[in-house]
Amino acid sequence: MEFHFLGTGAGVPSLQRNVSSLAIRFLQEKGVQWLFDCGEATQHQMMKSAISPSKIDRVFITHLHGDHIYGLPGFLGTRSFQGATSPLTVYGPAGLESFIKTALTVSGTYLRYDLDIIEIYDGQTIDAGFATVSVCELKHTIESYGFRIEEKDKAGELDVGKLQALQIPPGPIYQKIKLGQTVMLEDGRSIDGTEFIGPTRKGRVVVIAGDTQPTEAMVEFANDADVLVHEATFRSGLEENAHEFGHSTIQDAASVATRANIRQLILTHISSRYLNEEEAFTEEAITSFKQTWIATDLSIFHLERIHR
Amino acid sequence: MEFHFLGTGAGVPSLQRNVSSLAIRFLQEKGVQWLFDCGEATQHQMMKSAISPSKIDRVFITHLHGDHIYGLPGFLGTRSFQGATSPLTVYGPAGLESFIKTALTVSGTYLRYDLDIIEIYDGQTIDAGFATVSVCELKHTIESYGFRIEEKDKAGELDVGKLQALQIPPGPIYQKIKLGQTVMLEDGRSIDGTEFIGPTRKGRVVVIAGDTQPTEAMVEFANDADVLVHEATFRSGLEENAHEFGHSTIQDAASVATRANIRQLILTHISSRYLNEEEAFTEEAITSFKQTWIATDLSIFHLERIHR
Repeated sequence: MEFHFLGTGAGVPSLQRNVSSLAIRFLQEKGVQWLFDCGEATQHQMMKSAISPSKIDRVFITHLHGDHIYGLPGFLGTRSFQGATSPLTVYGPAGLESFIKTALTVSGTYLRYDLDIIEIYDGQTIDAGFATVSVCELKHTIESYGFRIEEKDKAGELDVGKLQALQIPPGPIYQKIKLGQTVMLEDGRSIDGTEFIGPTRKGRVVVIAGDTQPTEAMVEFANDADVLVHEATFRSGLEENAHEFGHSTIQDAASVATRANIRQLILTHISSRYLNEEEAFTEEAITSFKQTWIATDLSIFHLERIHR
Repeated sequence: MEFHFLGTGAGVPSLQRNVSSLAIRFLQEKGVQWLFDCGEATQHQMMKSAISPSKIDRVFITHLHGDHIYGLPGFLGTRSFQGATSPLTVYGPAGLESFIKTALTVSGTYLRYDLDIIEIYDGQTIDAGFATVSVCELKHTIESYGFRIEEKDKAGELDVGKLQALQIPPGPIYQKIKLGQTVMLEDGRSIDGTEFIGPTRKGRVVVIAGDTQPTEAMVEFANDADVLVHEATFRSGLEENAHEFGHSTIQDAASVATRANIRQLILTHISSRYLNEEEAFTEEAITSFKQTWIATDLSIFHLERIHR
């Protein structure tokens, strides 16, 4: 699972950090890609990355502030222009459909693919095939949400090498062994399938938060996640200012991560006022929560599959 | 007068050519800036140029295709975020107001400045103080317009050096001389004001066309202009294809320029299919109309004031 950070700034773009967007590429799922937020020029950032509009089949919008949605109409149009015909589902708060439909209608944009726009709400669960996505309302100046992605567990892989070493020839019998059944071979040997299956590949849990001040709801929602992507618009000490505008500081995000027992915290949505303080910002973050990574534009975070 | 080409591509952005936008900076008018079209990431291009959202007081939209308007909401929001309080007027076809208002409302964007959105129509004349802007409907797949900017003539400047050489001391008398009057000095000398005024600074005429296939209306509308900025989505020979989609070829644009007696033709809105043929594109253009300049992203064309 790769996290491609396309925009990691707050509010307005700077030359170093574009407005919000994050793509996740699921390598074990034929490289399918999901997009979280789509600030202006997200499609431009994609041109510099391994993310491709046609590979994206779901877009999740945390909230409707311009720096999170103004890139949507262009992204949707380009996806069609590039020839994509596979359907696309966009999830987001009420109002998103009106924004998208007005932009497409006024501009006379015809999409070659089916576009489904689904309104999200607190407590919702979305079955996305290989994973479920649940939705939690956060605390911002407008309706804002977080998404918890839980991959479904996958059965371990059949150890073909081990079977062949025992001179058990491939055939329908492999299917039974893979299901963990005990089978009798023609030569009289009894084979316990469970001994030939690798460990269950445990589904990973990833939480992507929209803009928010720290909230108890998030602590509970993100509990035990492998990765939490959280905003840190401000450095620590500016909590009052941050909360007034519905935002978090480094300390706020670190505290949520600690209490929610997060393995890896990733900070994004960083104010342009810190463009020349990247080092101090990082140091402060790591001091607050050791396993913290500061996202930068076009950086990629790799999350390996976890065997338990 | 400086033409800052912010986006010179067609339809979708490429790494070399962003979608449409052109800013004109009027150096003799306190550096005021006008924007023509505002494709996605126009505000990003501005960060790499001398163009600043707060300096722009008029935006002209040729037509509502996404590659000409999707950067508007972000531009409007950033102009406010940067602290601009001076009013802004946006001119464009019917439907533009609905697009802008929906985007701003849905995203909860508050503007600190007054925003006026004015619907344009064929034959309209806009008095913009130091210049008038007239509007002409072109021929595209949707309503599309061209703008003709005519600077008002400016009286020549008073030749103060020449007056001082004749030992005529500064005073209210200078004002009369500047108006071209004949005045009698205390020492009995008679001064003919017209001899102390430089030549009238003739207003320049610039025509900016939206997407269009060649049309007689444009030939007439652009007549005798100093500069014509015209699209050339395709190279010559592809006329049939170009016209089917309401576009022009190099030859089309050159022919309009020849028949309209244009001094300088500037080609923009160039298809990404020619990214590796820039040289051939330029050669073909110059062969078709000698005084042709091919706009590239972030290039600046300088038009000097013309003394006649």
